[in-house]
Amino acid sequence: MSAIRHALTTRRADDFAGWYQEVVSAADLAEESGVRGCMVIKPWGYGIWERMQRLLDARIKDAGVDNAYFPLFIPLANFTREAAHVEGFAKEMAVVTHHRLIADGKGGLVPDPEAKLEEPLIVRPTSETIIGDAMARWVQSWRDLPLKINQWANVVRWEMRTRMFLRTSEFLWQEGHTAHETSEDARIETMRALEMYRAFAQDQCAIPVIAGEKPENERFPGAVETWSIEAMMQDGKALQAGTSHYLGTSFADASGIRFQDREGTQQLAHTVSWGMSTRMIGGLIMTHGDDDGLRVPPQIAPWQVVILPMLRGDDGDAALLEYCEALKIAATKEWAFDEKLRILLDSRPGKVAAKRWDWVRRGAPVIIEVGPRDMEQGRVSLLRRDRLWNAAGKADFTNPQREEATGSLSAVLADIQASMFAGAVEQRDARIERGITGFEQLAAFFAEDQHQPGWAEVQWARPTGTELEQVVERLKALKLTFRNVPLDAAAADGPCLFTGAPAVERILVARAY
Amino acid sequence: MSAIRHALTTRRADDFAGWYQEVVSAADLAEESGVRGCMVIKPWGYGIWERMQRLLDARIKDAGVDNAYFPLFIPLANFTREAAHVEGFAKEMAVVTHHRLIADGKGGLVPDPEAKLEEPLIVRPTSETIIGDAMARWVQSWRDLPLKINQWANVVRWEMRTRMFLRTSEFLWQEGHTAHETSEDARIETMRALEMYRAFAQDQCAIPVIAGEKPENERFPGAVETWSIEAMMQDGKALQAGTSHYLGTSFADASGIRFQDREGTQQLAHTVSWGMSTRMIGGLIMTHGDDDGLRVPPQIAPWQVVILPMLRGDDGDAALLEYCEALKIAATKEWAFDEKLRILLDSRPGKVAAKRWDWVRRGAPVIIEVGPRDMEQGRVSLLRRDRLWNAAGKADFTNPQREEATGSLSAVLADIQASMFAGAVEQRDARIERGITGFEQLAAFFAEDQHQPGWAEVQWARPTGTELEQVVERLKALKLTFRNVPLDAAAADGPCLFTGAPAVERILVARAY
Repeated sequence: MSAIRHALTTRRADDFAGWYQEVVSAADLAEESGVRGCMVIKPWGYGIWERMQRLLDARIKDAGVDNAYFPLFIPLANFTREAAHVEGFAKEMAVVTHHRLIADGKGGLVPDPEAKLEEPLIVRPTSETIIGDAMARWVQSWRDLPLKINQWANVVRWEMRTRMFLRTSEFLWQEGHTAHETSEDARIETMRALEMYRAFAQDQCAIPVIAGEKPENERFPGAVETWSIEAMMQDGKALQAGTSHYLGTSFADASGIRFQDREGTQQLAHTVSWGMSTRMIGGLIMTHGDDDGLRVPPQIAPWQVVILPMLRGDDGDAALLEYCEALKIAATKEWAFDEKLRILLDSRPGKVAAKRWDWVRRGAPVIIEVGPRDMEQGRVSLLRRDRLWNAAGKADFTNPQREEATGSLSAVLADIQASMFAGAVEQRDARIERGITGFEQLAAFFAEDQHQPGWAEVQWARPTGTELEQVVERLKALKLTFRNVPLDAAAADGPCLFTGAPAVERILVARAY
Repeated sequence: MSAIRHALTTRRADDFAGWYQEVVSAADLAEESGVRGCMVIKPWGYGIWERMQRLLDARIKDAGVDNAYFPLFIPLANFTREAAHVEGFAKEMAVVTHHRLIADGKGGLVPDPEAKLEEPLIVRPTSETIIGDAMARWVQSWRDLPLKINQWANVVRWEMRTRMFLRTSEFLWQEGHTAHETSEDARIETMRALEMYRAFAQDQCAIPVIAGEKPENERFPGAVETWSIEAMMQDGKALQAGTSHYLGTSFADASGIRFQDREGTQQLAHTVSWGMSTRMIGGLIMTHGDDDGLRVPPQIAPWQVVILPMLRGDDGDAALLEYCEALKIAATKEWAFDEKLRILLDSRPGKVAAKRWDWVRRGAPVIIEVGPRDMEQGRVSLLRRDRLWNAAGKADFTNPQREEATGSLSAVLADIQASMFAGAVEQRDARIERGITGFEQLAAFFAEDQHQPGWAEVQWARPTGTELEQVVERLKALKLTFRNVPLDAAAADGPCLFTGAPAVERILVARAY
């Protein structure tokens, strides 16, 4: 038992799922809304999403992709055009059937039978078909290509069992949709988006990921190739944190995205789609959370530094507030990661210790407390969220001069960002097993009594069709799934773990969210 | 007849509604989506919305309001709690009744009768009730107040006759919702939001507005007071461009937002809501558009400067592109309105004259063309969108040295912003008639054969109830509405135009969108 009195009730090691729920609540990220399957994203959780949006959006714009906005509602007919896509999506969706309510005569309201839609509308679960319709209007010639569009939007996929940020009926995401002249151009865009997600996850969210191609059975419905970034959570499970799909010409065919090529011949465009969602916040929690709550990497923290004055409700408060205001103004002139620092002076009523633990649970990277003694000495008390406890089991405050503290904030934040990423890489790498060659050995590695085993990278012969289905079933019996074939994996040099045939590549096997 | 060959087919003066539609299309702002009542907001239109969002969001954050996100779906029961609110909203709304589709046996899909929702869900037309539910959970004590929340979201109000940006079934907006200890605090917030919209509209969108209180009959359903900013369009009609509502305690009562006050007594919170939507883009078009398309004020232009190289598909292109790249890099180092300049080098294939007119129609504030002769002389050809034509009816290019051009861009953009606003103010002020004292005179001013009359500011006794209804009916017969009682109107000093009783204030009368 640790001597430390941690800020959460549930320990990660004891009950990971319960711990996750407690972090979501204790860090003020989100809560149940009372509407089935939908959550309320609270200000601190939404602030993290806004930071993610701003950073990823800059990368999207840099790539020459334009943001646009398409209808929330999709006509039913759109879903029946692309056969594989229907299979994958036309199941659990919200269906709008009426456009008016009338009084039911008992003080309530009911859908007006007179206002039934001729054709029901679907609340978008994804926008390939509606954006495809627009692209068909916008593309006539090869000169109109590439056409690169992104949408930030809410989407709905009806879910029976929900889990905040990881699986909710409504969620927020961005969906990139691009159309190209050639298969080669489309594949280059597919890989550009994948690399964009990898860099965003690692360099900004401090979440290490492995980029690779999904096997056939895990492809997006209708796609030719699906690529993903996969992150390892602290319980050893995998989380797919972003995907990029090369869709070939089938979506273009279904939507009629045709163009006159350089030789004057009509061709179908090659399309690509790529997406990242509020799921990333779930990944953030399970990568960086600890037994004291969330830790937010400085680049995506809504507030990077929170200043807490020890107000006592007496005459001394005015001078203390002034001291803190000066500190805030000085610190706001500093920059980190090419942006001005984001500093909150939290002078709401309440005890400073209670407020400190609120901000620890939320995961603000740096907390600065200022009491009357600090002020007398021209100092502050500074706490790094990534190094919360000292050897004696106390909150590990340092006590620098005020000017020294403000001058060092930029470097401190950069150091927190780097050390959070390095720590997560180290944890992850220690748990990827590359030596497994037989199925029994694989089963043993993932045995139920094995505590949080991690991932296995195994050699395989890339079976297809029925042969692949059989392999997938065998894995499913162990609650395992294929994640992806890592881009940077070593070459195959032995037999396929599943079929014994000569392996052609290496693939990750894991339990997953 | 003007000798100028304008870039649009329809003249504002001939057919304002037709001209509006042509601008929406010719400036690449939006188009019909094929989904009833829903539009596609195209990249240039969405880019303008993103700029509006960013600028208004900064003001919202500066006021200590936190962004958050609430469910798209609202349970039916929420709508029956606040009687006046039901009256106002529970009519034309999208109703979700099923959560699954099944095959109809004829190759199509239908809602699955097995997956009918026990209680239908409404796609939010506004979020007072769902945010009220959350506030009821978050507020216990006076220490939790004020609670200030904002949401950027899509909302749906089923519309039979739609008009892009002005009236569509789905639109984008922000809705601020705040809860306060006292009526006084809530009224202060109501006015803060109103002033925020006034400053945003005028100082950033260059749209002159009049801020004032709506009369009783124009209040938000359930509100105690509704305030608005009203802008005059070039056809003389009014557009309500932002509203702020003091809701009293009735919404708090319906949602159960109660708190223990400083004396330990349970009290209802006083709530406020305020909103601004993509309608503002409609206001932008009708304030700043001309017979050559849209003019976008520099502060909200996605690209402030567009550089067009005169490429000829020969060996000279490389040097010309290099010259333009250098120009772009130099210009990107300049700042305007406390932000780096936004510069596009548009080197897509196509003739420069065609591209110039594309950007004129879209309304980019400054267009810089560079041909081989410009390059030889170290010069550029610069066109201001707000001064497009010279006296000879030609595009009014100036021909500065390259360094002079880049060095002056910041000042040029500031001048365009200021002159667009000043021009709009001048047009508006000339068309507000303050001398009308009788109803016949009012009717004559707004007579059908009167071309685009403008607004009348008249004295009234602020009748209420049935008396007000009668006045509203008389105005309605002339297609007129009350807009607001301007905050800065002169004091009343005569009889009420409608009742003859001593007037208490002045109110704007106008046709409106």
